[in-house]
Amino acid sequence: MPRVGNGIDIHPFEEGRPMWLAGLHWPRETVGAAGHSDGDAAAHAICTALLSAARLGDLGTNFGTDEPELAGAAGVTLVAEAAKRVRDAGYEIGNVTVQVVCNRPRFLLRRQEAEEVLSEACGAEVSVAAATSDGLGFPGRGEGIVAMATALIY
Amino acid sequence: MPRVGNGIDIHPFEEGRPMWLAGLHWPRETVGAAGHSDGDAAAHAICTALLSAARLGDLGTNFGTDEPELAGAAGVTLVAEAAKRVRDAGYEIGNVTVQVVCNRPRFLLRRQEAEEVLSEACGAEVSVAAATSDGLGFPGRGEGIVAMATALIY
Amino acid sequence: MPRVGNGIDIHPFEEGRPMWLAGLHWPRETVGAAGHSDGDAAAHAICTALLSAARLGDLGTNFGTDEPELAGAAGVTLVAEAAKRVRDAGYEIGNVTVQVVCNRPRFLLRRQEAEEVLSEACGAEVSVAAATSDGLGFPGRGEGIVAMATALIY
Repeated sequence: MPRVGNGIDIHPFEEGRPMWLAGLHWPRETVGAAGHSDGDAAAHAICTALLSAARLGDLGTNFGTDEPELAGAAGVTLVAEAAKRVRDAGYEIGNVTVQVVCNRPRFLLRRQEAEEVLSEACGAEVSVAAATSDGLGFPGRGEGIVAMATALIY
Repeated sequence: MPRVGNGIDIHPFEEGRPMWLAGLHWPRETVGAAGHSDGDAAAHAICTALLSAARLGDLGTNFGTDEPELAGAAGVTLVAEAAKRVRDAGYEIGNVTVQVVCNRPRFLLRRQEAEEVLSEACGAEVSVAAATSDGLGFPGRGEGIVAMATALIY
Repeated sequence: MPRVGNGIDIHPFEEGRPMWLAGLHWPRETVGAAGHSDGDAAAHAICTALLSAARLGDLGTNFGTDEPELAGAAGVTLVAEAAKRVRDAGYEIGNVTVQVVCNRPRFLLRRQEAEEVLSEACGAEVSVAAATSDGLGFPGRGEGIVAMATALIY
């Protein structure tokens, strides 16, 4: 039987930070996610979805402050590590789906590139979807980003 | 093996626009979704969920400005077209689940009708759930609506 | 074939109310969810996810004002009742995943306890994940909580 897992991740934007999202660097953006990690909300949501599917905890319990070597790791590194922990627990990964809601960056031209990078990190197919919130809420005011992922494992 | 796909869609409300949601027209509502489509957030979320499950892109890449004949299409038309593209790619659709969060319209009396219309468009069972946000955030202020869908295909 | 169902639930916080969340009482919190139920957003989201997976309606249509004996019931009681209705309809529950987004309570030390209580109520494995929104939106302002769940049944 397959198992399902969800993950949500939210990061505020900050002027002058590099933008990392969905495993990609977006060099033209003048804002990026705040925090001591690269702030890749899509990658973090995928981690929680994978770990939740296998009931291995969430992002904080797996890659929290008690694992300082991972605290500043790139999002794709965490995705690869989460996928490894899921496989080490005896599961195979079916596929993963993640959607970001934000004003920026614009995914239209790089959506497939993001899918390839995240799929390689995951060792399974990852679908990436993007939408704006049409000006509503914190994503619409450009204050930050929300990403939601679901993983299917078996 | 089944595959999973997520979709989120958000639309602001505008005075004087017709309200289309979850495949239904709500004639008593005095606001509707802004934009050049019918703004059916539930239908749009289902499209992205279906397309993501099959890794065929998202709403924007499938029904974007380069397909003007679909740009103003009704939500249910897009659901039917997304379902067709998923089947053309070799998959069957298991079921779809969508939840709307909004102050209006009130789904209690028309929830099953929405399920029937969307299921027919999809060619597979669609479950519709509705909730308010109890006054919180943009859905609670009546500024708009958010819909989230997940599709299972195989 | 498995079937998937989603559920979202949002509750505002109110001073002086007891905090119930994810099947647990949090006695140190000075706010709790408003409303006439215990306001357990995680439990309510799980109910809608289970019911949607079986296409049995949502929280409001199942446990609404026409069932006064359930209107003030504890979240875990509703989860157990939703799981029973899903099984009565002929399905088995695979697993359930739920994520809460809120400033409080802090789940780190009680996440596994929440998983155990909800899994027992559900009669199937429930994964619990928690995140803050890093100050963004109504969860970031401490106005309330959002929980999102997905259930897999067969």
